[in-house]
Amino acid sequence: MRIHIVAPITTPGLSRVEDFTDYAAPGTEVSVSILQDGPASIESQFDEAIAVPEVLRGVLDAQESGADAVIIDCMGDPGLGAAREIARIPVFGPGQTSMHVAALMALNFSILTTGASVEGIFPDLVRRYGMTDQVNSIRTVDVPVLELGAEELLRERLQRQAELAHDEDGAHAIILGCTGMRGWARMLQDHLAATGRTPIPVIDPIAATFSVAQALAGIGLAPSVRSYPSPPRKPVAGFEELMAVMGR
Amino acid sequence: MRIHIVAPITTPGLSRVEDFTDYAAPGTEVSVSILQDGPASIESQFDEAIAVPEVLRGVLDAQESGADAVIIDCMGDPGLGAAREIARIPVFGPGQTSMHVAALMALNFSILTTGASVEGIFPDLVRRYGMTDQVNSIRTVDVPVLELGAEELLRERLQRQAELAHDEDGAHAIILGCTGMRGWARMLQDHLAATGRTPIPVIDPIAATFSVAQALAGIGLAPSVRSYPSPPRKPVAGFEELMAVMGR
Amino acid sequence: MRIHIVAPITTPGLSRVEDFTDYAAPGTEVSVSILQDGPASIESQFDEAIAVPEVLRGVLDAQESGADAVIIDCMGDPGLGAAREIARIPVFGPGQTSMHVAALMALNFSILTTGASVEGIFPDLVRRYGMTDQVNSIRTVDVPVLELGAEELLRERLQRQAELAHDEDGAHAIILGCTGMRGWARMLQDHLAATGRTPIPVIDPIAATFSVAQALAGIGLAPSVRSYPSPPRKPVAGFEELMAVMGR
Amino acid sequence: MRIHIVAPITTPGLSRVEDFTDYAAPGTEVSVSILQDGPASIESQFDEAIAVPEVLRGVLDAQESGADAVIIDCMGDPGLGAAREIARIPVFGPGQTSMHVAALMALNFSILTTGASVEGIFPDLVRRYGMTDQVNSIRTVDVPVLELGAEELLRERLQRQAELAHDEDGAHAIILGCTGMRGWARMLQDHLAATGRTPIPVIDPIAATFSVAQALAGIGLAPSVRSYPSPPRKPVAGFEELMAVMGR
Amino acid sequence: MRIHIVAPITTPGLSRVEDFTDYAAPGTEVSVSILQDGPASIESQFDEAIAVPEVLRGVLDAQESGADAVIIDCMGDPGLGAAREIARIPVFGPGQTSMHVAALMALNFSILTTGASVEGIFPDLVRRYGMTDQVNSIRTVDVPVLELGAEELLRERLQRQAELAHDEDGAHAIILGCTGMRGWARMLQDHLAATGRTPIPVIDPIAATFSVAQALAGIGLAPSVRSYPSPPRKPVAGFEELMAVMGR
Amino acid sequence: MRIHIVAPITTPGLSRVEDFTDYAAPGTEVSVSILQDGPASIESQFDEAIAVPEVLRGVLDAQESGADAVIIDCMGDPGLGAAREIARIPVFGPGQTSMHVAALMALNFSILTTGASVEGIFPDLVRRYGMTDQVNSIRTVDVPVLELGAEELLRERLQRQAELAHDEDGAHAIILGCTGMRGWARMLQDHLAATGRTPIPVIDPIAATFSVAQALAGIGLAPSVRSYPSPPRKPVAGFEELMAVMGR
Repeated sequence: MRIHIVAPITTPGLSRVEDFTDYAAPGTEVSVSILQDGPASIESQFDEAIAVPEVLRGVLDAQESGADAVIIDCMGDPGLGAAREIARIPVFGPGQTSMHVAALMALNFSILTTGASVEGIFPDLVRRYGMTDQVNSIRTVDVPVLELGAEELLRERLQRQAELAHDEDGAHAIILGCTGMRGWARMLQDHLAATGRTPIPVIDPIAATFSVAQALAGIGLAPSVRSYPSPPRKPVAGFEELMAVMGR
Repeated sequence: MRIHIVAPITTPGLSRVEDFTDYAAPGTEVSVSILQDGPASIESQFDEAIAVPEVLRGVLDAQESGADAVIIDCMGDPGLGAAREIARIPVFGPGQTSMHVAALMALNFSILTTGASVEGIFPDLVRRYGMTDQVNSIRTVDVPVLELGAEELLRERLQRQAELAHDEDGAHAIILGCTGMRGWARMLQDHLAATGRTPIPVIDPIAATFSVAQALAGIGLAPSVRSYPSPPRKPVAGFEELMAVMGR
Repeated sequence: MRIHIVAPITTPGLSRVEDFTDYAAPGTEVSVSILQDGPASIESQFDEAIAVPEVLRGVLDAQESGADAVIIDCMGDPGLGAAREIARIPVFGPGQTSMHVAALMALNFSILTTGASVEGIFPDLVRRYGMTDQVNSIRTVDVPVLELGAEELLRERLQRQAELAHDEDGAHAIILGCTGMRGWARMLQDHLAATGRTPIPVIDPIAATFSVAQALAGIGLAPSVRSYPSPPRKPVAGFEELMAVMGR
Repeated sequence: MRIHIVAPITTPGLSRVEDFTDYAAPGTEVSVSILQDGPASIESQFDEAIAVPEVLRGVLDAQESGADAVIIDCMGDPGLGAAREIARIPVFGPGQTSMHVAALMALNFSILTTGASVEGIFPDLVRRYGMTDQVNSIRTVDVPVLELGAEELLRERLQRQAELAHDEDGAHAIILGCTGMRGWARMLQDHLAATGRTPIPVIDPIAATFSVAQALAGIGLAPSVRSYPSPPRKPVAGFEELMAVMGR
Repeated sequence: MRIHIVAPITTPGLSRVEDFTDYAAPGTEVSVSILQDGPASIESQFDEAIAVPEVLRGVLDAQESGADAVIIDCMGDPGLGAAREIARIPVFGPGQTSMHVAALMALNFSILTTGASVEGIFPDLVRRYGMTDQVNSIRTVDVPVLELGAEELLRERLQRQAELAHDEDGAHAIILGCTGMRGWARMLQDHLAATGRTPIPVIDPIAATFSVAQALAGIGLAPSVRSYPSPPRKPVAGFEELMAVMGR
Repeated sequence: MRIHIVAPITTPGLSRVEDFTDYAAPGTEVSVSILQDGPASIESQFDEAIAVPEVLRGVLDAQESGADAVIIDCMGDPGLGAAREIARIPVFGPGQTSMHVAALMALNFSILTTGASVEGIFPDLVRRYGMTDQVNSIRTVDVPVLELGAEELLRERLQRQAELAHDEDGAHAIILGCTGMRGWARMLQDHLAATGRTPIPVIDPIAATFSVAQALAGIGLAPSVRSYPSPPRKPVAGFEELMAVMGR
């Protein structure tokens, strides 16, 4: 099986093949692409909007080159619905997938995300995915996506917000609300247990999404054509190159 | 006051100034723009995705040229969230506005829309806007957007589906689920009453959205910066022109 | 257009024509009536109950004398459903209208109201209007309606509760939960922004309701006869005068 | 214990002591009062509105004369909230009580009520009482309240609608949606079983409400003062007699 | 009438006939049985699981010996659904019954229960019974079931958590979340009022459940066969004795 | 990795290792156990109740013998919560897992299950798992579990109910509501497409649950200890052998 990751950003080095291969079954290959044109990171609906056309192209390119499934590597799931409409292979988003994984593992959960600029995005996703009654809180660490590499700061902020999610909000699980936070789930989970708290799962969205995508693509499941119907063909002005790639 | 209409399509003649001036208060001016590049009509999430970048440009152009409010002229509200993030003037979408108007006027409602390709869009909107318990049904007339000019066919299909929404689904109100259906609300409302049914309001999304946008812009209300935060500035590759226009 | 305001109280001077004319379009006339018999203010379901018969009379009087729409000037919307059943012109309530306006402008909102005696009324309204998942909190300033004129006290209390709604409850918007609080929205909105908080809209229920009522009446929308059917005629003992006025 | 029934109508003979004594425990006394002024029956929110002031007086009269609990004998629960605010004894409504009893006995239920004029009332009650996800359907027999004595017609219509609620709507229980339908529950229940259907409970609202009111009053439970706070005292113009009776 | 109480535990003396007779109408007899094999107390889903087979036997024994209704004496309602499937007499659970009683008496409520080990059980019950929007909080006193006899400790902890439920969570009512807490409701209710708080009902689950069970059994209501269908007969290996008792 | 399947029934041959190995990644071993004592099939809450103690033993036996995850092979998820409380390895149920997989793939879905006796179980599961707004309908083929081998009958009934779920209920996906229906998903999916319907995914619960369990166990995720706390140790009468096995 081949799973392709579309990172909806132009910054190289944030989505790397080696971030995913840990979760790959024997025989699963991973490829990653980033955008040529688009935002350096996704921290608003505006960033999503300008990333989406190239994301769609990336999804179709991956399908063309033989991928069996695609993951859009961002918690906001930018372009997920449109990608499912135009692709014949299954497309997954870490926002949707992580919430369902959390709901499988716990009666409710909190989301720890980056900063205030995405606070508007998450309530909208939570409603779209029918998770209103399962979400305890959405908390932010106030670290911009492109500065998530500041390890000490991030560690401290994640620990603080995870403690508050656990103690004040009563979270039974925590989702790391940015795929750029990959690698921190185990630390946080251990930190909560080590500080005498009831252990709760901390969900790494990339681990959860990659493994579930691999699983469901493996059994041949694809998104519903009724939920994501094939777009009617019609004249499109401009965007010719995109359209040509899309074979439409 | 000046209200600008961004039609998120490239087809001229579907959104006309005169479609809105009926609802304009004395002193309100209306302007309309269509897209240069983009889809001929919006009938899928894919169409929305490729329309949105130019929609955003249209919103910013309108703001630049002194508009007091903008309406994105499509029931799917493509780009509404992103537009609210980047504009200082209020932006409205007919999907969201019509549902709130319907809920103000009736205990529940049905939506009559164009065809199967948008059947996936509406349940998603209904959830986002918190209207799940108010919606009786989403019905389609199976007429593509670009063929809505076929008057006899459309009349017959609208009547049939409105009757079913009233009789089978128990709708207390009906929303016309495509802004291209403007002008048919009165006919449908009269038809239901003339055929001995309990009268119910049929909501023209353009009338409802224009008049409410004009009203709320008139009292100085703008969307919440907390729901639609200003996007953090950051490097953007490509899209230079767009970015320049946006003054970012 | 003529919009009539029924203040469901006997206290003169609280609902004044000049409170509404700011929001009136050119050509819109405003008239106001108060009750002859009834409570001095509305601060309980009991107050509402004894006000409603005269409110209904006021609505019918307004219709009789040529009004195009009526607003019942109280956040509890006393008599709204019954008024819609008996009137041919549209009737609006600021409770219902303000919540829909808030939901159009923000992902969620808090309500700031007067005192503990109305704390039971708001959760009930929130459920009736399907807003449970949109409401962050209902907070009170602990100032009786008839003492809302105590400017310094009110300002201080409103600021304090608005800060808490913003900071503790995470409100993306605030509704002033008493029409007697008209005039304070701008101050509160500015206060929150001036104190370094993310700006959020503060909704004046009178401005929101008057402007939306004017807008929807202007396009000829009326409440659904299926949600608000005309009451069957039948013998009524007593209440003759009321009935006579109602032409029933 | 003494339980008083306030029938919120002026028609004598519809609420009779003997309708309740079957459900009275040894030692429970029943008294019934009707209105002097008010509607002949309740079939609209308008009817409710003009009945409520006298209903409140009836509740206070009952308290004055030593009743331990009051039932407002109408499925719309007219005046229930206001009555709970002003009375020291518990007040019950058959709408609210029957829905909770049905939800105790079955996973979901349908309501069979009188005619189209109350179709607007029930969805509102269902939302207020948080029963949206438990209600399958609201069906009507199209028989006015004052003609419920037409036994053959009523039997036939009830059977037909109960069959449809069972077969088409999948109801796991049925509530008779008018207290004037008392006495028909057993027949309907037997009819459904006798026609080969899975047996489901049919709930007589009077039996359910009287027995639960008696039970809860018996253990000293009273409605929450926080949900139904005591109304602040204040000047009231007119309604002197009412106020005097109310000891306010 | 005879009401039998099945205490789903092996510890004698926790469920006593005299705990129920206060709520018995004249002519109602009470009997109590405990388990021979099973857990000493119920504090987990595991405890429930191993208690349930004997609970079912206890329900059938009670039916055999002429009981008119059965109550399973534990807030988790262990075996309630299965018991309703196999018994011809109505079976009640204090978890479900108390929540409906609380919702009849107040707009929302909190639950005070024993310790962290049941914190997972309550959110599940709340969802099953459709009470998500009515529950403010679930709080624990951190006292194991078998130590609820430590009066001073329990009193102090109950008071503290009730105060927090009232003040922090805004509870309009409180349910004692363990049938072993019987007898404390009045004290708590008085404590809240005596400390200057708005009075709210505190619901003793045994009082509420016994009185409602007696009331509904008294009017011949039984759980829906459609919600709780009779289990198909089929071969069962082992459990012969159980099966024999069950007459299956 | 080793995944153990506990079939909560005594009938041999219904859960076979070879039913799962198709979905096993290289290196994943599968083992299956059935019950010694218990029901021949699960078709009621009663069947579940008497199966659960042995299911728990089976889960602990599997853990003892080195399994990395356990699946309880029944759509009703009997004993899932209790098993998660007592096991250190993750335990999955096909009811819960399939619903989350369906919700990942489609905006809504229907469930096709065996017969009327489980119609009460599914609405309860749907509520527990927070899926109320995603479920279109629950339909039955009226074939007992132990007769699912009647291929022609089953095919015909499945096709008929799937068509109705698609056409009448508007399902965007279908879940086969009995793990004994394994193997039919592809046929049904093809049948719907072959008959000119919009293709929708038909979810085989075993394929979905095995592959997701394998995926999530593979990344080390385990159910939340806060949702499924370890049961407090305490005296247990009888069930000694069970307890001994459990090492408690």
